[in-house]
Amino acid sequence: MSTHVKRLLAAEPRTVTVGAQLLADALADQAAPHLPVQWRPPADELLPALRRVAGDRRRASANALAAERMLAARAELVDVRRAADVIGLERGQFCHAGPPVDWARASGPLRGALIGAMLLEGLADDPEDAARRLATDTGLALAPCHDHGGVAPMAGVVSPSMWLFVLRDEVHDRTTWCPLNEGLGRVLRYGAYARDVLERLRWMGEALGPALAAALAAHGPVDVKGLVGQMVQMGDEGHNRNRAGTLMLLRDLLPNLAEDGARSGAEVARVARFIGGNDHFFLNLVMPAAKLQAAAAADIPGCTLVTAMARNGTDFGIQVSGTGRRWFTGPAAVPDGLYFGGYGPDDANPDIGDSAITETVGLGGFAMAGAPAIVRFVGGTVSDAIRTTREMYEITVAENPAYALPVLDFRGVPTGIDVTAVIRTGILPQINTGIAGRVPGTGQVGAGLVRPPKSCFADALEALAEAAPAV
Amino acid sequence: MSTHVKRLLAAEPRTVTVGAQLLADALADQAAPHLPVQWRPPADELLPALRRVAGDRRRASANALAAERMLAARAELVDVRRAADVIGLERGQFCHAGPPVDWARASGPLRGALIGAMLLEGLADDPEDAARRLATDTGLALAPCHDHGGVAPMAGVVSPSMWLFVLRDEVHDRTTWCPLNEGLGRVLRYGAYARDVLERLRWMGEALGPALAAALAAHGPVDVKGLVGQMVQMGDEGHNRNRAGTLMLLRDLLPNLAEDGARSGAEVARVARFIGGNDHFFLNLVMPAAKLQAAAAADIPGCTLVTAMARNGTDFGIQVSGTGRRWFTGPAAVPDGLYFGGYGPDDANPDIGDSAITETVGLGGFAMAGAPAIVRFVGGTVSDAIRTTREMYEITVAENPAYALPVLDFRGVPTGIDVTAVIRTGILPQINTGIAGRVPGTGQVGAGLVRPPKSCFADALEALAEAAPAV
Repeated sequence: MSTHVKRLLAAEPRTVTVGAQLLADALADQAAPHLPVQWRPPADELLPALRRVAGDRRRASANALAAERMLAARAELVDVRRAADVIGLERGQFCHAGPPVDWARASGPLRGALIGAMLLEGLADDPEDAARRLATDTGLALAPCHDHGGVAPMAGVVSPSMWLFVLRDEVHDRTTWCPLNEGLGRVLRYGAYARDVLERLRWMGEALGPALAAALAAHGPVDVKGLVGQMVQMGDEGHNRNRAGTLMLLRDLLPNLAEDGARSGAEVARVARFIGGNDHFFLNLVMPAAKLQAAAAADIPGCTLVTAMARNGTDFGIQVSGTGRRWFTGPAAVPDGLYFGGYGPDDANPDIGDSAITETVGLGGFAMAGAPAIVRFVGGTVSDAIRTTREMYEITVAENPAYALPVLDFRGVPTGIDVTAVIRTGILPQINTGIAGRVPGTGQVGAGLVRPPKSCFADALEALAEAAPAV
Repeated sequence: MSTHVKRLLAAEPRTVTVGAQLLADALADQAAPHLPVQWRPPADELLPALRRVAGDRRRASANALAAERMLAARAELVDVRRAADVIGLERGQFCHAGPPVDWARASGPLRGALIGAMLLEGLADDPEDAARRLATDTGLALAPCHDHGGVAPMAGVVSPSMWLFVLRDEVHDRTTWCPLNEGLGRVLRYGAYARDVLERLRWMGEALGPALAAALAAHGPVDVKGLVGQMVQMGDEGHNRNRAGTLMLLRDLLPNLAEDGARSGAEVARVARFIGGNDHFFLNLVMPAAKLQAAAAADIPGCTLVTAMARNGTDFGIQVSGTGRRWFTGPAAVPDGLYFGGYGPDDANPDIGDSAITETVGLGGFAMAGAPAIVRFVGGTVSDAIRTTREMYEITVAENPAYALPVLDFRGVPTGIDVTAVIRTGILPQINTGIAGRVPGTGQVGAGLVRPPKSCFADALEALAEAAPAV
């Protein structure tokens, strides 16, 4: 077991301050090590379930094993290929973000993205035709990305002709994927499907995907975990700031792309400008790297750690290691954030996307202390950002030394959300995220902060209690 | 006058705590705004000079004007050309870092770099021949880079065939320069002159310089000031961490390089790998950008702000606005830092290089709060880094909003070192820097922290006092 997990689980004597901040402040003034805990009594109706899960003798070792696997997981970019080839997606099949949802309950941006994907695949003549078919054609099929072993940001719609990053975790012999990032503003994943959106996607399929595949083949696998470790030392938190990560990917692959005799200098330049002009390009590599960590911790009996947080624009869903692939869902909230010029909260769709997989393993909102400049994008203050990371240590069981935050004296990001800790403390995971326009076709309208509904964790706790052996 | 300067100079009522930390702590606990000041009485012998300079009625407005110019200065990379063409350097003429020095007093790394430059220019048959000629040939000439209006890191040796970055400040109609960065370890600027060092320099002259010149011509001027503003939000302080800056330069120029029909893909790839493989490449753009700021503040009668800090490996020298080009020198100290494997303090040369121009305008050691990961390279702790930046506000007159530190709630870096504040507080500027081996030919042996000798500031104060009008 890694020392980083052990240290968290070991029963070392220490001072814990509960409630009034005054106590913690007094200890801080004396430079006395202490652990401030925000605590409020759990709801009475959850006490029996909490007692049963807390009494589950498998729990401590199951959580330790899960955390150890989360920290040990590797993530290498090994291939770039079409979704049809990677996951066998067929014409008329679409992946989407979050827990399962059908057209009838789908939010505006998810509908917009599905309409765009229908047009891209030549399955409809125009947006109205696409919407009608999506509502009525029983030959079309929707499934969560997570069900296909992958993740995708925002609406997360993936169709067979789209190209995917393919990532490997050699330690746990697992592969995952994420589509290529399209840029910001009016893009499919935010629900836009205008002509320029589709033209960009066609260029990505015809030029960008093959170019990246060729560069990667020449370069060899890219150590995404290593790059994430560096980016969290460069002001990125891996969800809404991916600037340094994007630049390092460009640095690593561009020489190979330039050497590739099959492409003209103008084509190389276009690819370089597309990637370099989109600070979020690397998000689509952080997400599958995070998925590999979370997946490594999945399916451990008695384990109370969260292995997925994902939203489809209507529902927020979580998966928990000890309860396998079951989704615990609740209504997705509208993020509180900053809006692009001309937009406001009335334009916002509820929370959407698989990107909360970053928070599931300690990045994104959990790593905001290392990315203070993020507050200019998602709102809040710098001290809020640092406080948020500190707070997330209270609901997690490990710290990831591979993702060390210099400003917290190189403390590893808070990793492994424990459902029982969320219920006991009342502290919900902090997610920072993009905000999609609620009207199909709009695109991104802002970025902000959001938390999952507490009911997801309460329902997961009840399920864990049911699955726990009788005491 | 900019509001950022005004705010610092305005006499707003506020709480100042002097001496015991207890007072500042008590106010911090109450969230009361306060300014903690470390203070010790100035040396008695300097009191008359301090009194005279403090009583100089020109001083407040002169310093405000100087600070305003430092903040207003722009910095665009406009050209890449040979030193012979940029500053008319002729065969047998060499620039070096720091204040003036001759061969007899030159330190090991400066001697090593001069030997290398002699060989590069074909002025000697071998290192021994080069050293003999440098010691005896009166046809050879040494001059500080600063005297030629430029800056160069470490030994700072520039010979006619080397290529220079040329930067412009349109606001003050001024041009400056800095040579291209060679990489780390065994390189000329650290005093190495072996065959591989010279081969690299030849390749830089034949391939890298022309390639960058062509890419820049196609791209148009690069806004270096803008990039520095972004890098200080990405964990770089601009002296010993230039990783984000280097990556952004690569992002901006590489597409143009790829489009350049005159170069093969392999040549483009080599240039991209050379730049991308050296996190310090961008240092040589931060330095001339800083020089443009400092130069904008020079030569203002009555002004007590420092306009250059530079070291030649033997002497540490400063220039001050009110005393023009005069150098105030003292013995350079050996930095306290971390050493590369196999090296230790006994191998270290005293402080060397023009790179302290970064600290002169609030970057480098002054901006360490924004670059906490730097402590793994130069030593110390993260809280030391933050404390250092806070301390530097005590000896500076302005804050640069273009270089905002997120972790300090986007406070601008402390800019404009006031000689009188240094003498009054006893706080010397904090510089973080590379450490050169003292034996010629060694190269870099580590990186660390160093401060200038106090005597430079005392001598400058005396000179300012002499130049002040009688009260």
